[in-house]
Amino acid sequence: MSAGALVVQPRLLTLEGGEGAGKTTVLRALRDALVQEGCDVVCTREPGGTPLAERIRGLLLDAGGEPVHAHTELLLMFAARTQHVQQVILPALARGAWVISDRFTDSSYAYQGAARGLDTGFIEALETTAVGISPGLTLLLDLGVASARARTRGRDLLEGGAPDRIERERDEFFERVREGFLARAAQFPGRIRVLDASLEADRVAEAAMAHLAAYRRGLA
Amino acid sequence: MSAGALVVQPRLLTLEGGEGAGKTTVLRALRDALVQEGCDVVCTREPGGTPLAERIRGLLLDAGGEPVHAHTELLLMFAARTQHVQQVILPALARGAWVISDRFTDSSYAYQGAARGLDTGFIEALETTAVGISPGLTLLLDLGVASARARTRGRDLLEGGAPDRIERERDEFFERVREGFLARAAQFPGRIRVLDASLEADRVAEAAMAHLAAYRRGLA
Repeated sequence: MSAGALVVQPRLLTLEGGEGAGKTTVLRALRDALVQEGCDVVCTREPGGTPLAERIRGLLLDAGGEPVHAHTELLLMFAARTQHVQQVILPALARGAWVISDRFTDSSYAYQGAARGLDTGFIEALETTAVGISPGLTLLLDLGVASARARTRGRDLLEGGAPDRIERERDEFFERVREGFLARAAQFPGRIRVLDASLEADRVAEAAMAHLAAYRRGLA
Repeated sequence: MSAGALVVQPRLLTLEGGEGAGKTTVLRALRDALVQEGCDVVCTREPGGTPLAERIRGLLLDAGGEPVHAHTELLLMFAARTQHVQQVILPALARGAWVISDRFTDSSYAYQGAARGLDTGFIEALETTAVGISPGLTLLLDLGVASARARTRGRDLLEGGAPDRIERERDEFFERVREGFLARAAQFPGRIRVLDASLEADRVAEAAMAHLAAYRRGLA
């Protein structure tokens, strides 16, 4: 456990969950709610969030057909995250803004830890040394794998997109991702709130806003 | 100290030292000597060595003007190295080939550790977990910073090249790199042999071949 070495950032909110869980809709709802109250809000995403980190994202999602080893994937994720934290998140927090990130470190525990089987202690060492901060509140949008598949398939058909390298993984992989996220939520029940993402998007967004409101009351 | 957890690979030879020290000439001499004796030899380099790792190299050497944080640089180096080890070095060693790599993990201790000031214990954790192997023999081509600058400047003029992001660092940085390499050599005197790279290229290559010959006698 390295959590003791992480600095909790109360104005850093993160959204976690698989593809198709509705993170984008929730992110917009949270942003709009904060902006309406006059807050400065920065919305960002991982992997990515800076031009260099977006180029790392490009390598992660399309490695040109070369097999990507699990540790390569993990280290690229943390390289992008370090850059994102230093260039975007910490400067925004320092000026008093709220930051909402679509994915953050919990994703590495779920995807590279639980699903790819990499050592959690090593991920903790990366988090402690190269990230150093933890969100104050994380909303986990939990959705069954079959439902997530149906939604992303519909989106790919609509947008003419093709699944990327990680989206092409098998259902067992995404089952392990989901279990990994739920295990993180069980480990950090104060920080991570689980939302039922099988509900209609508006209901999920309402639940997210209720969690944010309760969280902000707790901060005051 | 994580060296105990690393598997020494007797047929993995690495060349270390700053730019302009003459690693390319030495690499060719070692390769030719081994090939003449009928050995299968794979020559490679870091950062790089696979198409994906070369794309990571591209990000490291030209980050589009974005400041690259030290941990980002370190993690990109190790992401490329993991990929290189898994895709190129271990398969070559498994079929009985010799591998000569222009740079390997010692460079991370010198550049990101000694010169950028990152924690050595963290670099050891990355080496142990994501690399797992150590060369049997490392030749360190040691050259003063002023001499190295004169050589790379001459090369850039001849080839019309421009210095990359790391080559643009100040002399103090390269002094620390050099000290970092010499400290590694002092720490691992059995593995790392220091060559005076201020001598003429042919003399340096001869010294390198003498070290290789002595090393191979020791293996037999």
